[in-house]
Amino acid sequence: MSQPKHLAIVGATGAVGQEMLNCLEQRQFPVASLKLLASARSKGKCIPFHGEQLVVEELTPESFEGVEIALFSAGGGISKDFAKYAVDAGALVIDNSSTFRMDEGVPLVIPEINAEAAKSHSGIIANPNCTTIVTLMGLNPLHRKWTAQKIVAASYQAVSGSGAAGIAELDAQVKAIHSGSKVQPKVYPHQIAFNVIADIGGVGENGYTSEEMKMQNEGRKILGHGELAASVTCVRVPVYKSHSIAAWVQFEETPDVEEARELIEKAEGVQLVDDRQLGRYPTPLDSTDGDDCLVGRIRRDLVFENGLSFWVVGDQVRKGAALNAVQIAELFV
Amino acid sequence: MSQPKHLAIVGATGAVGQEMLNCLEQRQFPVASLKLLASARSKGKCIPFHGEQLVVEELTPESFEGVEIALFSAGGGISKDFAKYAVDAGALVIDNSSTFRMDEGVPLVIPEINAEAAKSHSGIIANPNCTTIVTLMGLNPLHRKWTAQKIVAASYQAVSGSGAAGIAELDAQVKAIHSGSKVQPKVYPHQIAFNVIADIGGVGENGYTSEEMKMQNEGRKILGHGELAASVTCVRVPVYKSHSIAAWVQFEETPDVEEARELIEKAEGVQLVDDRQLGRYPTPLDSTDGDDCLVGRIRRDLVFENGLSFWVVGDQVRKGAALNAVQIAELFV
Repeated sequence: MSQPKHLAIVGATGAVGQEMLNCLEQRQFPVASLKLLASARSKGKCIPFHGEQLVVEELTPESFEGVEIALFSAGGGISKDFAKYAVDAGALVIDNSSTFRMDEGVPLVIPEINAEAAKSHSGIIANPNCTTIVTLMGLNPLHRKWTAQKIVAASYQAVSGSGAAGIAELDAQVKAIHSGSKVQPKVYPHQIAFNVIADIGGVGENGYTSEEMKMQNEGRKILGHGELAASVTCVRVPVYKSHSIAAWVQFEETPDVEEARELIEKAEGVQLVDDRQLGRYPTPLDSTDGDDCLVGRIRRDLVFENGLSFWVVGDQVRKGAALNAVQIAELFV
Repeated sequence: MSQPKHLAIVGATGAVGQEMLNCLEQRQFPVASLKLLASARSKGKCIPFHGEQLVVEELTPESFEGVEIALFSAGGGISKDFAKYAVDAGALVIDNSSTFRMDEGVPLVIPEINAEAAKSHSGIIANPNCTTIVTLMGLNPLHRKWTAQKIVAASYQAVSGSGAAGIAELDAQVKAIHSGSKVQPKVYPHQIAFNVIADIGGVGENGYTSEEMKMQNEGRKILGHGELAASVTCVRVPVYKSHSIAAWVQFEETPDVEEARELIEKAEGVQLVDDRQLGRYPTPLDSTDGDDCLVGRIRRDLVFENGLSFWVVGDQVRKGAALNAVQIAELFV
C-alpha cells in the first residue's frame, strides 16, 4: 500500500476546503495526519473527518512543520503570503488560487490531461481555473486527436464559484423577491436571482474579464500549446453548483462527430450524455456532486470549417477545484 | 393625423397578446376598433384597453370581417389554420409564429433593420424569432458598416419565452425547492429553477435545435445576406423576462471598438451600456419592460481576425415579439 501522508488544508472552513475533506474521505486518500488551517475567526471550530472531530487551527507561518502536502484554498492573498512557509517547511503546496498559475516553474495540472507536468515542480503546483478545467475536460480528448486551434466559449457559472457567500446571496435574493422585499446586491455587482451577469473578475483593459482570459492563458500552459486562441464570455447564472460551458472549437484537422463521441466515451473523468433521438444532453444539475464532467450536444460547427461545437458541465467545486487538487495530491502517494 | 385602424389580436390572453395591448396603448397606436380573439376557453373574459373593458371573442373563420390588421400570437397551429381567413377578409396578418417566416413572398421584418421589405407582402408579414431579433438589433449597426460573415452566439433565454406557463413553472419550482418538496418538470424537459437547459425547440438531425437554426435562416433573410453563417447554442436560464446573447462576429472588413460603440449609440432601438472603467454593461433585468435592446462588453475578438465580441440583452416579450409586431403595424398607418 501507499505511504500515508501528513496533510494540511488551508481554508478548511470554506466551500472548497469542505469539499476537499469530502474528496479525501470518499477517495480513501491515505492520510497519516490532517491539519485544518483557517483564519483566527474559525480557530477551535470542529470539523468531522473519517468519524473523528478535527479542530481547526489558526494559520501561522509555523503551521507547516511536519506537513508533506498542503492544499491551499483560502484566496490568492493567503497563498501569496503563506505558501512560502509551507515550501520552506518541505511541504508540497497544491494551490487553488490564481497566484502562481502562470509562474514559470509552477506546473498547472489537470491530472487526466497533463499529470506528467506535476513532476517538475519546485514546491508549488497550481490548480487551474474552474471554468478552464471543465472546458478542457471536454476538449482534451478531441484536442489529442485533431489539435484545437481556436476556442470560442460562453460560460454559465454557478454562484458557489464565489464560495458560500455566493450561495447565501442567491438564497437571500430569491426569498426577498418572493416576499416582495427589495434586493440589495452585496457579493455581485447586480441582482443575481432571476438575472445573469456577464462580468466575472471585473472587465479589464482589453475588454475581457480576468476570468475570461484564463481560458486562453491557462489553456495554453496546460495543453502545452502556445498558439491556442480563446475568446470567452463568462457569465454568472442563478445556479447553485456546477458550471456549464457552450464551446465552439476550430481544429487543425477535420473532426468527426461520431468519433468525437467515442473519444469522449473512452476518456477518463468525462461522460458522454449525448443522444439526439432520445433528447439526452447534460444539465448542470446532473453533474452536481459528481466527479465527472458531462459532455453532450456534440455537432459539426456551422462557422468553423474544421469545427465542432459541444456543451460541457461539471461540478466546479469538485472537479473545478477540490477534486482536481486531491487528484494532484494522489500523484504523490 | 393617421387614419385609425380596425385591429384584431389573435391570442389576446397570452403573454405576448397582453404585451401587444400594452404596446398599442403606450405607443398611442391609432385604433378604430380592436377585436380580442382567443380560444373558446377564454371567451367572455374582460381585458382593459384605454380605460374600456374589451370582451374576448372566440376565434372562428368569420372573426376577421372588417379587420384591417390582425396580430397573430397564438402558436404556429392557429396561424396555419386561421391566417388565411384573415387574409381572405382583406386583413394584413402580422404573425408572431414561425409558420410563414421562411416562405417566399412573406416579408420577415425588424422595422429598424428592413422596414422596406414589409412593402412587398401578399397579406402576411412574419415577426422574427425573439433571440434572432435581439441579436440582430445589436449586430445590425455593426453589420451595416463592416458586413457580418460569421456569427457564433450563446443565448441565455428567459422562461417567459415559453409564455405564462414558463413563468409559472419557474415560480412553482423555486417555491417547491425552498420548501423541500420534489420538483416535477412539466413545461421544460428538466428542472429549470437553479439549472440551465441547453435545449430550446428540440435537438434536430444535424445536432442543432430548431431555435438555434433560426439565427442563420432568419438572419440571412432579414439582412438580405444569403452567405451569413451562424453557429448558435440556445440555453434556457432561470430568468423571468429578457433574453441575453453573447455574440462573436467575424466581419468582412476590420472593425473598430470605439466606432462600434458610436454606431450602437446612434442606432435606433438600441442603447449602449458599455464602460470598462465604470464597470457598466447590461443585464437582462435592465432591459425588462423596456423597448430598447442594450449592448455592452464590445471588444476586439481574440479568435476571429476581423472580429468583435459583444453582449446584448432585450425584453423578448416586447422587442422580441409584441413591440416588433406593433412596430410592423405602425408601418401601415
